[in-house]
Amino acid sequence: MAEDDLIRWLREQDEGLRQALGDDVATTPALSRPVATVDSQIAGVHFPPELDSAHVARRLLAVNLSDLAAAGASPRWGLLSLAAPPAFDHRRFFRAFLAASKVHGLQLLGGDLSSTEQLVATLTAVGEAGDSGPLSRRGAAPGHRLWVSGPLGLSAAGRHLLNAGATLNPPREQQAEKELSDAQIQLPAKLPPELHELARRCVLHHLLPRPHLALGQELAHLSQLGEGTTLATMDLSDGLARDLPRMAAASGTGAQMELAALRQASGDELFHQLCLWLQRDPLDLILRGGEDYCLLAALPTSWTFPRELCPPGCAPLAIGTCTSDPKLVLASADGHHRPWPDGGWDHLGP
Amino acid sequence: MAEDDLIRWLREQDEGLRQALGDDVATTPALSRPVATVDSQIAGVHFPPELDSAHVARRLLAVNLSDLAAAGASPRWGLLSLAAPPAFDHRRFFRAFLAASKVHGLQLLGGDLSSTEQLVATLTAVGEAGDSGPLSRRGAAPGHRLWVSGPLGLSAAGRHLLNAGATLNPPREQQAEKELSDAQIQLPAKLPPELHELARRCVLHHLLPRPHLALGQELAHLSQLGEGTTLATMDLSDGLARDLPRMAAASGTGAQMELAALRQASGDELFHQLCLWLQRDPLDLILRGGEDYCLLAALPTSWTFPRELCPPGCAPLAIGTCTSDPKLVLASADGHHRPWPDGGWDHLGP
Repeated sequence: MAEDDLIRWLREQDEGLRQALGDDVATTPALSRPVATVDSQIAGVHFPPELDSAHVARRLLAVNLSDLAAAGASPRWGLLSLAAPPAFDHRRFFRAFLAASKVHGLQLLGGDLSSTEQLVATLTAVGEAGDSGPLSRRGAAPGHRLWVSGPLGLSAAGRHLLNAGATLNPPREQQAEKELSDAQIQLPAKLPPELHELARRCVLHHLLPRPHLALGQELAHLSQLGEGTTLATMDLSDGLARDLPRMAAASGTGAQMELAALRQASGDELFHQLCLWLQRDPLDLILRGGEDYCLLAALPTSWTFPRELCPPGCAPLAIGTCTSDPKLVLASADGHHRPWPDGGWDHLGP
Repeated sequence: MAEDDLIRWLREQDEGLRQALGDDVATTPALSRPVATVDSQIAGVHFPPELDSAHVARRLLAVNLSDLAAAGASPRWGLLSLAAPPAFDHRRFFRAFLAASKVHGLQLLGGDLSSTEQLVATLTAVGEAGDSGPLSRRGAAPGHRLWVSGPLGLSAAGRHLLNAGATLNPPREQQAEKELSDAQIQLPAKLPPELHELARRCVLHHLLPRPHLALGQELAHLSQLGEGTTLATMDLSDGLARDLPRMAAASGTGAQMELAALRQASGDELFHQLCLWLQRDPLDLILRGGEDYCLLAALPTSWTFPRELCPPGCAPLAIGTCTSDPKLVLASADGHHRPWPDGGWDHLGP
């Protein structure tokens, strides 16, 4: 009957959930322009198995909200399926999830609990698109500038830092509703002190990505104002190397990407030093590290990128231009062009 | 890039999916009275780990549709999250899922794929409730007759048969879109021949429950016609012993249940013989076996139960009456009353 106890407890935590739980289905809001996404977080695949359940909850929410951000949609409601090992701290997970979802306007309306060996948490998130419908990756046109809301590569560096021995201080009960802070991150002992601040940012960025919701909503708003003009947006989750060709194929364009700009997409020189320490190629992490959870957008050149709406610490950057030639090329400052390194490459060189 | 290959293949399988795939979010239909549910199927928890991926797909769909059936809703769309081991046959799974969901009017609109050790498949299913809103477990009133659309206990007997050595013939590629048939089930060698037909039905019932959608929709229709009268419905997934108290608590009623009727809820005398062979108490399987995926309904006595809308092989049965006294009692034919055996019991006796 532990499941019934947990459900009783959940009903006490949240007024919306109190009304929703206790039937076979949840009655969900009737929306005019609903969009939906589903994403899972799996222990050992998406995060270290020992990760505090509160952080798992926040990461699950963030990766789903990042999809809604790409559509320019506002979060509305969600259903959560949680398959967890017996020792999993369900209450800690739900306290963090409910607090974080409230911040973003997502109402949890129900879910499903099971027992399993490997933690698998799945969230379906439904949002309402703007008046002119959801943004998509199909609206890029020749001449559009390609922007990333950035940074790229930091999340992957954070993952490599965790693999290299970075850890989190053990959770304290009273911190359940607080977010992960820099101070909780223990870095590998041999990491040079001048890299500590950046390294903590990378781990934080990896474990707790920030959905770019306000940015996506503003792009949807601009799209509505600029009747007849199109734009394209997508969430960067698999790395720019794989995601850019998807946008280009969906829009029927090519792109000329700027190597010098891409090298800036991780911020600054310190990132290169950190990559050296991690024995990783910085450009490889920027292009193929994945899990950046920022937006890629193709916008008319006359538009100003609304950089003030990016979360703190982001570094919006123009990184290329859409072309009518369907090829994807990577252009160096010296005028040398090479094919875009999607999928089949191993190393781009220094 | 195997994920991209699978997605390309999926777009070729289904026109609705072709339009839906390829963005970060799915654009979903705007519904007037949307209801939603989520349920997972986990290898080794809900089904034998070696189960054909086509059956996993159908079972996942069925358990979700059973929730929509309890609300009297019509299936509309779904999102699927699939975390599967490397050897999992994704195409076989999706062929079966798409064929079965088409039968029930559910359009798959997207999903999420991951790699994991233990198969976890999660479906979020959204439906449209009838004009008077979703049915719920809160509408039972004193004097209502309690019905099960039945049968009870067969699914649990099927699970025990699988544990006792029943197996399925290996899948053949061309059967992917065909449902599991009696002929594929290999029964334990020592099972007496007179029990074979029933035993096959039990395994089939366990692996492939039939959602009682038409029944639920008709009850919603009757509820709308009978203005001012209420009814209650719920899906029996955890066993009547646990689920009945939930309906009673939600409605603020008690119930007097009829032992003699409950003993009939598994069909006939053969079930008792099968239980004897399995060394299980028949009444225990009927009340606490679980995964029956039929409906429990509390209806005004003046209503005729629409038994013609139950799937073939069901045995609708009145099993008790709601009372104003909030206690739940189990009444024997000899007039003896005992407390309802929810949760804390082990054995009811012969």
